[in-house]
Amino acid sequence: MMHLILADSELELMPEEIKKGRILLDSSLHHSLMKGLKDWKRRGRPDIVHIFLLIAQESILNKEGLLRTYVHTRNNEIIYVNPEMRIIKNYNRFKGLMQQLLIHGKVPLKGGSLMKMKKERLDELLNKIKAKKIVFSRKGKRKALQDVFEENVACIIGGFPSGNFISSVEKYADEIIRLHEEMLPAWIVAMEAIVAYENFMKLHL
Amino acid sequence: MMHLILADSELELMPEEIKKGRILLDSSLHHSLMKGLKDWKRRGRPDIVHIFLLIAQESILNKEGLLRTYVHTRNNEIIYVNPEMRIIKNYNRFKGLMQQLLIHGKVPLKGGSLMKMKKERLDELLNKIKAKKIVFSRKGKRKALQDVFEENVACIIGGFPSGNFISSVEKYADEIIRLHEEMLPAWIVAMEAIVAYENFMKLHL
Repeated sequence: MMHLILADSELELMPEEIKKGRILLDSSLHHSLMKGLKDWKRRGRPDIVHIFLLIAQESILNKEGLLRTYVHTRNNEIIYVNPEMRIIKNYNRFKGLMQQLLIHGKVPLKGGSLMKMKKERLDELLNKIKAKKIVFSRKGKRKALQDVFEENVACIIGGFPSGNFISSVEKYADEIIRLHEEMLPAWIVAMEAIVAYENFMKLHL
Repeated sequence: MMHLILADSELELMPEEIKKGRILLDSSLHHSLMKGLKDWKRRGRPDIVHIFLLIAQESILNKEGLLRTYVHTRNNEIIYVNPEMRIIKNYNRFKGLMQQLLIHGKVPLKGGSLMKMKKERLDELLNKIKAKKIVFSRKGKRKALQDVFEENVACIIGGFPSGNFISSVEKYADEIIRLHEEMLPAWIVAMEAIVAYENFMKLHL
């Protein structure tokens, strides 16, 4: 099984310092409001979470039942994504769903949940997962994923547009890997990890 | 070099039959207006083009200079994407850009173009590309991409949510490949093709 974790992702409701209200923060809409906030340049990026989930949930790996997906946020919440969950393709509707999730802790509100959210730190999640922990970071070593993977792996990918992890990911890492000289967006790292693990598990004949 | 072609993609301005105006058709907004149109259930999907381009343009393969990306539309236009083009992450802004491109034939309007559009059929484009042509389709054979690739390949992926190609892609195909039993979204096929070609070209050490 591969556990795929988007860590320190910039997904949050609008902080009360800016405006009372329970609206999902989106830097493309709230840019001028955000300027007083700590770390404002990296915050409010549900678009990164969206593209990441579209890749993870629709992947062959997920369809084969070998993927578990989690989104950890800067406020130390963990979103557990049901493998059956198909992500809404329309960005504006996706944001509505994530807003509901952050307010109510699960979606849909009735029936079995497709996503649920818990107040939980990244290290608490990692402690529960029995797998080799691989962190993707530009500070890591260049190694081929084929040489690093085991049957049970947890891949930890930063869910922010620039800068470093907020969580102390290095402490929990069995390996820190760099895929390329240049900074890669979270979804590209996810796609490389997923297809490499599909190859490792010999899903491609 | 890999040439990656999103074919018969559902990208168009609102047809005059519905409403005069030069607005990009988006089924998530114009659903009720579209019901009279031919093929209305599959049309108006700039979201698929967006996710496809976010994967292609940010990929390691593109950063290494080994990818050329094209978007062919149902109205037989070809969009030539400059390898330097970084795709706007915000969906609403991306739609604004594509609308400008479909109206004016290039973006940005001033200076060197990052995307330009020509009235051209898929077979006219394929005739110009000297490479092995691989079409991805559920009607194809299951084969490992490693066994099919050559140094110059053109991968043709359907840019529509369901149904079949409109263009006669089978005529131009050297191989027709099926990656999985289930229908896969266009961006998942793109990610599989890109990473497989990165492996084929030994970009991963």
